[in-house]
Amino acid sequence: MNDTIVFALSSSVELADEICVHLGIKRGKCSVKHFADGEIIVEPDETVRGRHVFLIQSTCAPVSETLMEVLVALDALKRASAEYITVVMPYYGYARQDRKARPRQPITAKLVADLLQVAGADRIITLDLHAPQIQGFFNVPIDDLTCVAMIGQYFRAKKFKEEVVIVSPDHGGATRARNLAEYIDNSTIAIIDKRRTQPNVAEALNLIGDVNGKIAIIIDDIVDTGGSLMGGVDMLYKNGAKEVYCACSHGILSGNAVQRIHDSKIKELVITNSIPMNDAKRAEPKIKQISIAYMLAKTIQAIQHHTSVSEIYNLFNDK
Amino acid sequence: MNDTIVFALSSSVELADEICVHLGIKRGKCSVKHFADGEIIVEPDETVRGRHVFLIQSTCAPVSETLMEVLVALDALKRASAEYITVVMPYYGYARQDRKARPRQPITAKLVADLLQVAGADRIITLDLHAPQIQGFFNVPIDDLTCVAMIGQYFRAKKFKEEVVIVSPDHGGATRARNLAEYIDNSTIAIIDKRRTQPNVAEALNLIGDVNGKIAIIIDDIVDTGGSLMGGVDMLYKNGAKEVYCACSHGILSGNAVQRIHDSKIKELVITNSIPMNDAKRAEPKIKQISIAYMLAKTIQAIQHHTSVSEIYNLFNDK
Amino acid sequence: MNDTIVFALSSSVELADEICVHLGIKRGKCSVKHFADGEIIVEPDETVRGRHVFLIQSTCAPVSETLMEVLVALDALKRASAEYITVVMPYYGYARQDRKARPRQPITAKLVADLLQVAGADRIITLDLHAPQIQGFFNVPIDDLTCVAMIGQYFRAKKFKEEVVIVSPDHGGATRARNLAEYIDNSTIAIIDKRRTQPNVAEALNLIGDVNGKIAIIIDDIVDTGGSLMGGVDMLYKNGAKEVYCACSHGILSGNAVQRIHDSKIKELVITNSIPMNDAKRAEPKIKQISIAYMLAKTIQAIQHHTSVSEIYNLFNDK
Amino acid sequence: MNDTIVFALSSSVELADEICVHLGIKRGKCSVKHFADGEIIVEPDETVRGRHVFLIQSTCAPVSETLMEVLVALDALKRASAEYITVVMPYYGYARQDRKARPRQPITAKLVADLLQVAGADRIITLDLHAPQIQGFFNVPIDDLTCVAMIGQYFRAKKFKEEVVIVSPDHGGATRARNLAEYIDNSTIAIIDKRRTQPNVAEALNLIGDVNGKIAIIIDDIVDTGGSLMGGVDMLYKNGAKEVYCACSHGILSGNAVQRIHDSKIKELVITNSIPMNDAKRAEPKIKQISIAYMLAKTIQAIQHHTSVSEIYNLFNDK
Amino acid sequence: MNDTIVFALSSSVELADEICVHLGIKRGKCSVKHFADGEIIVEPDETVRGRHVFLIQSTCAPVSETLMEVLVALDALKRASAEYITVVMPYYGYARQDRKARPRQPITAKLVADLLQVAGADRIITLDLHAPQIQGFFNVPIDDLTCVAMIGQYFRAKKFKEEVVIVSPDHGGATRARNLAEYIDNSTIAIIDKRRTQPNVAEALNLIGDVNGKIAIIIDDIVDTGGSLMGGVDMLYKNGAKEVYCACSHGILSGNAVQRIHDSKIKELVITNSIPMNDAKRAEPKIKQISIAYMLAKTIQAIQHHTSVSEIYNLFNDK
Amino acid sequence: MNDTIVFALSSSVELADEICVHLGIKRGKCSVKHFADGEIIVEPDETVRGRHVFLIQSTCAPVSETLMEVLVALDALKRASAEYITVVMPYYGYARQDRKARPRQPITAKLVADLLQVAGADRIITLDLHAPQIQGFFNVPIDDLTCVAMIGQYFRAKKFKEEVVIVSPDHGGATRARNLAEYIDNSTIAIIDKRRTQPNVAEALNLIGDVNGKIAIIIDDIVDTGGSLMGGVDMLYKNGAKEVYCACSHGILSGNAVQRIHDSKIKELVITNSIPMNDAKRAEPKIKQISIAYMLAKTIQAIQHHTSVSEIYNLFNDK
Repeated sequence: MNDTIVFALSSSVELADEICVHLGIKRGKCSVKHFADGEIIVEPDETVRGRHVFLIQSTCAPVSETLMEVLVALDALKRASAEYITVVMPYYGYARQDRKARPRQPITAKLVADLLQVAGADRIITLDLHAPQIQGFFNVPIDDLTCVAMIGQYFRAKKFKEEVVIVSPDHGGATRARNLAEYIDNSTIAIIDKRRTQPNVAEALNLIGDVNGKIAIIIDDIVDTGGSLMGGVDMLYKNGAKEVYCACSHGILSGNAVQRIHDSKIKELVITNSIPMNDAKRAEPKIKQISIAYMLAKTIQAIQHHTSVSEIYNLFNDK
Repeated sequence: MNDTIVFALSSSVELADEICVHLGIKRGKCSVKHFADGEIIVEPDETVRGRHVFLIQSTCAPVSETLMEVLVALDALKRASAEYITVVMPYYGYARQDRKARPRQPITAKLVADLLQVAGADRIITLDLHAPQIQGFFNVPIDDLTCVAMIGQYFRAKKFKEEVVIVSPDHGGATRARNLAEYIDNSTIAIIDKRRTQPNVAEALNLIGDVNGKIAIIIDDIVDTGGSLMGGVDMLYKNGAKEVYCACSHGILSGNAVQRIHDSKIKELVITNSIPMNDAKRAEPKIKQISIAYMLAKTIQAIQHHTSVSEIYNLFNDK
Repeated sequence: MNDTIVFALSSSVELADEICVHLGIKRGKCSVKHFADGEIIVEPDETVRGRHVFLIQSTCAPVSETLMEVLVALDALKRASAEYITVVMPYYGYARQDRKARPRQPITAKLVADLLQVAGADRIITLDLHAPQIQGFFNVPIDDLTCVAMIGQYFRAKKFKEEVVIVSPDHGGATRARNLAEYIDNSTIAIIDKRRTQPNVAEALNLIGDVNGKIAIIIDDIVDTGGSLMGGVDMLYKNGAKEVYCACSHGILSGNAVQRIHDSKIKELVITNSIPMNDAKRAEPKIKQISIAYMLAKTIQAIQHHTSVSEIYNLFNDK
Repeated sequence: MNDTIVFALSSSVELADEICVHLGIKRGKCSVKHFADGEIIVEPDETVRGRHVFLIQSTCAPVSETLMEVLVALDALKRASAEYITVVMPYYGYARQDRKARPRQPITAKLVADLLQVAGADRIITLDLHAPQIQGFFNVPIDDLTCVAMIGQYFRAKKFKEEVVIVSPDHGGATRARNLAEYIDNSTIAIIDKRRTQPNVAEALNLIGDVNGKIAIIIDDIVDTGGSLMGGVDMLYKNGAKEVYCACSHGILSGNAVQRIHDSKIKELVITNSIPMNDAKRAEPKIKQISIAYMLAKTIQAIQHHTSVSEIYNLFNDK
Repeated sequence: MNDTIVFALSSSVELADEICVHLGIKRGKCSVKHFADGEIIVEPDETVRGRHVFLIQSTCAPVSETLMEVLVALDALKRASAEYITVVMPYYGYARQDRKARPRQPITAKLVADLLQVAGADRIITLDLHAPQIQGFFNVPIDDLTCVAMIGQYFRAKKFKEEVVIVSPDHGGATRARNLAEYIDNSTIAIIDKRRTQPNVAEALNLIGDVNGKIAIIIDDIVDTGGSLMGGVDMLYKNGAKEVYCACSHGILSGNAVQRIHDSKIKELVITNSIPMNDAKRAEPKIKQISIAYMLAKTIQAIQHHTSVSEIYNLFNDK
Repeated sequence: MNDTIVFALSSSVELADEICVHLGIKRGKCSVKHFADGEIIVEPDETVRGRHVFLIQSTCAPVSETLMEVLVALDALKRASAEYITVVMPYYGYARQDRKARPRQPITAKLVADLLQVAGADRIITLDLHAPQIQGFFNVPIDDLTCVAMIGQYFRAKKFKEEVVIVSPDHGGATRARNLAEYIDNSTIAIIDKRRTQPNVAEALNLIGDVNGKIAIIIDDIVDTGGSLMGGVDMLYKNGAKEVYCACSHGILSGNAVQRIHDSKIKELVITNSIPMNDAKRAEPKIKQISIAYMLAKTIQAIQHHTSVSEIYNLFNDK
């Protein structure tokens, strides 16, 4: 691993440090400055000539700035003759804008893919992309990891005595719910069927499937303001769920999401460290964070040693 | 529309003729030859210099050949100085290979997008892409039309007295089921939950939602061999459905699919003419075909007259 | 001009309105939303199929966001089949990062050019680029306008009785000072020679040329925090300047720049509306703003009517 | 050669196995599936991360499918992070469509080159391209090998006592005839002059040069239906040739070509294994096949060991 | 034709003037300067915004400079917002370097195609490319005209009483000889068979075909130093030719070619004005020049009026 | 350094030989031929498969030919499978055409960058580019070295007793003058202020700064005809300079520049061997040449050993 350097940009310094501990190397030095007028400069402080660089940054809020940091860093690395640059972007901002839902909409997830490639990214590593088709937005190799195995491991450890039902909070997430159900014995799935009754009026929620007397685990890729999640939790309890847990790969938790979770009847919200937590989040006992650092470190090793990335999930599957 | 030419390749001649009737123009002449050794040549028989060309071809079976026809035609048109070339591809072959489901898989739907663009496509028109994210595989403009409004119109005309439930045949199609339900008053949705019990063993089917005493309409984008669809039909009847209809945008109906449908308890299978029917299919009374030619003609007019494509759906929504 | 639409993004709404008054058209409607998590969506509210779009936006602070707005808007416009998209970017953010001043630096001005082009810009209009060589960062046509003629007109109207000396605040601006001097009869030029005496210690200032008893006009492309400008003003007075004026194309005026100008012995700071002013700036009597809207409107007309852009400057040259 | 993997697609499995024997390695495992609806998927069964892959496939009939296999395989290999991918395509389908012979024709040989490059080919190896200019259709390195030295060796071994004349079957092949003549002492060349007497009427054949009392060897790059070749053979006998042999690099032998050869007065048709033989061809005693596997294995070794490819021909030149 | 401008660079001013007379327009003004240090600048003197530009320049000697003029002009035109730029390059320099004849050779004809395209050429018009496959070196449309019909017309007017034989001076030109023979009744073809007897020793010439008592017309695309042509002329006389004429599309006539022709037994050398003649050439009575200006003017009109280019040849075929 | 080859093209053979002595390797063999008609062919005489090639060539006069040599060599090297190609271009021709100074001008310095990249350059090394922004014309890594440290070392060695003033000969060079002043203790700077008094009339010269009684060193990047330099020298003496030296990175010295320097009151003109000297220049005692070979050799070593290039300047800084 002598020719490997791991750099972190501002949203992922802690995660990168944890990864470097697993890799047994020191994190590369790199200065990131934001000027008074809002411009950003990123300058590697060590030579990168001929090196394999792993650039770690989730493009979470402030997303325009965290994305711009990545693009500027790529330009600097490319011009400094780095041999190969892998962008490790556990949270891929703009992933939800992955199609034209209405006429004249942008497909910003594709735009971001184009920006990363034109700036110089040679490979991408992501975690639980909002839609797996985003892989196809890239012409460079992309490894989209998943933490579903880790979440399954987390809930198996609870050894629930009741039946478990995995709930998708919307139509698009049914496949994800099925995937998690595979990791938990005898679990079934259910789906929350939202529909717009009138323009600009709140959505009607309907449950498809059965949660009565069961432990319900809502699984989603992203929890943002938490608004629609809370509606789902209430409805599950009304339909007889005994306890409701939530899990997601990316805990954005914007606005007053933490307070909402605190006030709700939710038992736990399981998130990863793909997005760094602030103190308020850390202080909330209902929020449980699991770390993806070991999985990312193993992936970096597999890439550098030319072994298979897909075998990594076996590490989390003691089922 | 003087500078507009519509050409058809081998899979879509009938559809193109119907479109041209709606447009009030004659279909452009274009020779398509397949040689003894399997090579293909496409030669426009009229000058295309400075013209806007609409090239109509579904890449249905034999998909390698229908795709190659499009690529060869694009090369010929580009080199013959066509001003702008729109590929109208109602059925987009390889759409289901839209992500890496396993390591070392290709993303052939993206490959096809790259091939079309390098060969010279300036714009794409498709119908009900398997995943809407495929729009983002293109850098040229793409209009992904939908026939859900037309299918809704078809079933509303039946004026069912029983309650209607729209059924998604798998996890990925729940959104499509919800979309169709919006066009049919008081309908609900249900989902068939497939899971693999053991490697290489048949899948277990489970119903999420309620179909008892109802008219069930299974909606899918593609019906291929029809195998899994038939399993779903049986299960819905077992769960008390009064009648089971099916609808899909693209009726591939490969292998003995027509016989299977004939022998099944399915009431009707509604498909479009995105893929041409052979005589066997035409002879089967359970298969009902609705035409997308008028919708495509209106889309071509909107493009040439610089008006909005999205208003076309209102034509099919008398709800 | 029937096929022309002018859209404005968030930093340039007022400027665009003023341009549209000169053009005699209504500004196009376009929604720009910033979500709670920092993501941005731009959606044109009118059809742009086959239109020539002028997208007006200075990438001033918050620069990452104003730039991202442009990129997202370009993606939406391109996918909505706009015929030709001209980005009018009077202030081009990151222009000062136009070369590697140290090893391993990015060349972000080039990166921005690449991002704009990959997102879909067909032509660029800028104003007084920090270095004219930035024109060469683009492969699409770029018109770099200049307001030096307008600034010359402004100062000629003062009919100074004393001799005038145009002062460059640094080595790189000597050419700009000479250009302005050409517009003011009998003026000469001088240069402020900054040099770093020790690492991280303030720079030493030295005057090259003579300002004694003269009216000095410092000309720069950008005034940012105003720090170094103030040092220059003091030095000119120490060297005997009778009055010191300043002029620049782009008044960023970040931090406490307005207060500094207020407190200084500077007579006036002339800026343009390439960057919108806030209330504090408007309230400061020493800051004089001249508008570039008429010049931009004339440029848009020249482009649409296929006439020469370069003749526009004659409008400001009554010398 | 540890980091080298050789994969074969469906038209070239036997050839690849023979190459691997010469290289002393096992052929890489790779699954190629054709589905009921005609779609193809290619999946490498071993990790290719960081490897140099040689992908062996002639794009002979069914050419659309064999070509699509290559493109899909390239996409899979590229996304699976192969370090460098060399496509070994002994028979390059569509090579004869290498120019616009009439207005509005495609140049499909160039289209194929673009498709291969956009799909991910880093280098190409071919054999006796129909026109050597096709090398220039590629921007990646291409090694166009020739089997003329091997064919020369084959005929020298016959130690003919009569004079030998090498015959080009058309105007375009005169250079190829001269090249083969260089390998056979005291041989001369002749050319068959075809011309179209009337539209859609058979061509008139004329001999330029002298074959009277000589052994004639017709050399071509491709024998397809064999129709025009047979006409040439008869004419040579009429002009006094004592015996007529044929040789070509690529024996397509479509339609009833084998029967035609059997029934003709041709002594032998020498072909290579660039295109696999079926049982009918193997059973025909007049058809002699020589193998290019050793030459291809030596080429792969030269590429991997960074030695010169051009010295390989000396192996076949004992003249 | 109001939006059409024809510019000429230094090698083709006379030809362009002649074309403009046929088109009935004035040649566009454009300054071409060569500085003392060898650098070149090309500046259009009229606005080209939104215009269709035809840029006329043969890349004959000094080929590096004439090519650089084209590239610089393309850059200027592109940046000045020309709508569409067609390069009319009757003589395409470097066409003979169209393949790797030996290992490690460049394919400069392809390089030139890439340079023209990256500099901004939207379409190319050439005349009798050395190999028609060079068409495939371009991704933009290319029209490769031929003057064979005009040369046929020229010789038919001589109403020879003897039989005529069209002679190719080398193996590669047999197809060209056959093409010319089609325009002259009852003519046959013959080929000069050159081969290298020893390295660095003069080539041996051999005649394939019969010229005894006939009028021989040697046809080639390019006559350069004329050395090998003269050897061919002598050999034809030795083989009994009654008279020997020569014709070529491009008369480079470098070195002492004119003197050689003067001294030879050649009757006439017919060339076109694709390459401008100097006074020495004009003074030589054996050199007959025919003009391609009318054919080029008709081609420009066909492109601008969107009619077929291929019908132009009928103008020269009164046969 | 086993896999490293250094090739030289025609303008830089001596420089390359000197570099190779420092590197301790033999210069690679490579044939460069110019044909009678002006075409050029470059063929490496050794295998370059998998090698890192350094191609050394200044694009000085005849600039079209020296540039074409580089492009042709790149094409040959790329097609011969060189692993990585670095173009070492100490003098970058056309660097002064780096922006549109007037409408409809080309930006030829950017065009050259595009040509080099499309032809296959993977990295560029230059010396004292006319504008540092030209770095941004490239997407591949570029190292723009400077000889200012070496020039500073040269003049420090003279141990002048008088004060030294570094003079920029025009407005654009003030930064370069300041850079050199940093290497010479207690030096100041001055600027020659040229302005055009009337169109096509000689420029008026004015001095900004003080040279009275001092040693003046004019520093420029390029000395071409020397005309304006001589005017500057005279003016400095008139303003009281005791002695006037000149220094530049690139001594083009076209026209009668050598004679002018000989006849002038200039003490010395210091140039480098970026451009080769002819005998006339070598014979002129006022012209002093310093060699950049050692600096380039150290740069090549740094690149191959993956160490930092920027530390090389310390070798020349004993200050």
